[in-house]
Amino acid sequence: MAERLFLEDLVAGQRFVSASFTVSAAEIVAFATQYDPQPFHLGHDEAADSLFGGLVASGWHTAAMTMRKVVESVPTAGGIIGTGGELRWPRPTRPGDVLHVETEVLEVTPSRSRPERGMVTVRCVTLNQDGEAVQTFVPKLVVPRRPAPVDG
Amino acid sequence: MAERLFLEDLVAGQRFVSASFTVSAAEIVAFATQYDPQPFHLGHDEAADSLFGGLVASGWHTAAMTMRKVVESVPTAGGIIGTGGELRWPRPTRPGDVLHVETEVLEVTPSRSRPERGMVTVRCVTLNQDGEAVQTFVPKLVVPRRPAPVDG
Repeated sequence: MAERLFLEDLVAGQRFVSASFTVSAAEIVAFATQYDPQPFHLGHDEAADSLFGGLVASGWHTAAMTMRKVVESVPTAGGIIGTGGELRWPRPTRPGDVLHVETEVLEVTPSRSRPERGMVTVRCVTLNQDGEAVQTFVPKLVVPRRPAPVDG
Repeated sequence: MAERLFLEDLVAGQRFVSASFTVSAAEIVAFATQYDPQPFHLGHDEAADSLFGGLVASGWHTAAMTMRKVVESVPTAGGIIGTGGELRWPRPTRPGDVLHVETEVLEVTPSRSRPERGMVTVRCVTLNQDGEAVQTFVPKLVVPRRPAPVDG
């Protein structure tokens, strides 16, 4: 993460892979208690009877944990600033899952109205220990151009 | 929230409005510390120089707070189970913002392969005190059909 990447440093096909991390039942329940208090995210007895057949993480928890790893693994200048995108949860995150995030640059588009920056479309895929995607997100990121050298 | 709504109870145009809530700087920083540790979400001095000109909430924090309000205000049977959708943050959430969520049913589609349920597309718009959207999300929700009465 020493070198920050500007718009000119990014090309379609470039990839970034995060470190792995393990998701605990306690974290799943803590997040859900605050933001998504439903039986299948809280570990209540009803969780076993739900569509999921047991405790699963809120999709928003998967998204938040993913963001942490994107911030750690994608060294764009100015940070990770997204305006949104298509978000999918193909399968749930379960306690004990070991996740990591793979980010690929899809498209780099200099801004016509803002010469100092551009938009970069990326695909962030959050994978579990079996290589299955628990989340895909395809955001557009705002990335600055490299500042011109100062004359003199 | 007394009566839960099944697929048959939902029609395009139906709307649900959540209670309002105020977002504090402390909550913004607490969420970001755990999930999105970037200067403009942590209240560091650099926040003033960022694209945002000050402390703003992580988009994922706005999303998580929105989910809480959707869970509280949209009484679908079986809970709120989404498979994903298009997520947009047209402007950031700032400390002191008073938000609420308005959810509108866009489309109700019975499943062909799963007679006991269907998909409901909704638009969830998170609005601030000035009536400006800080988030829009258009997910597909899995909603059960009303169980058939048992004969006898």
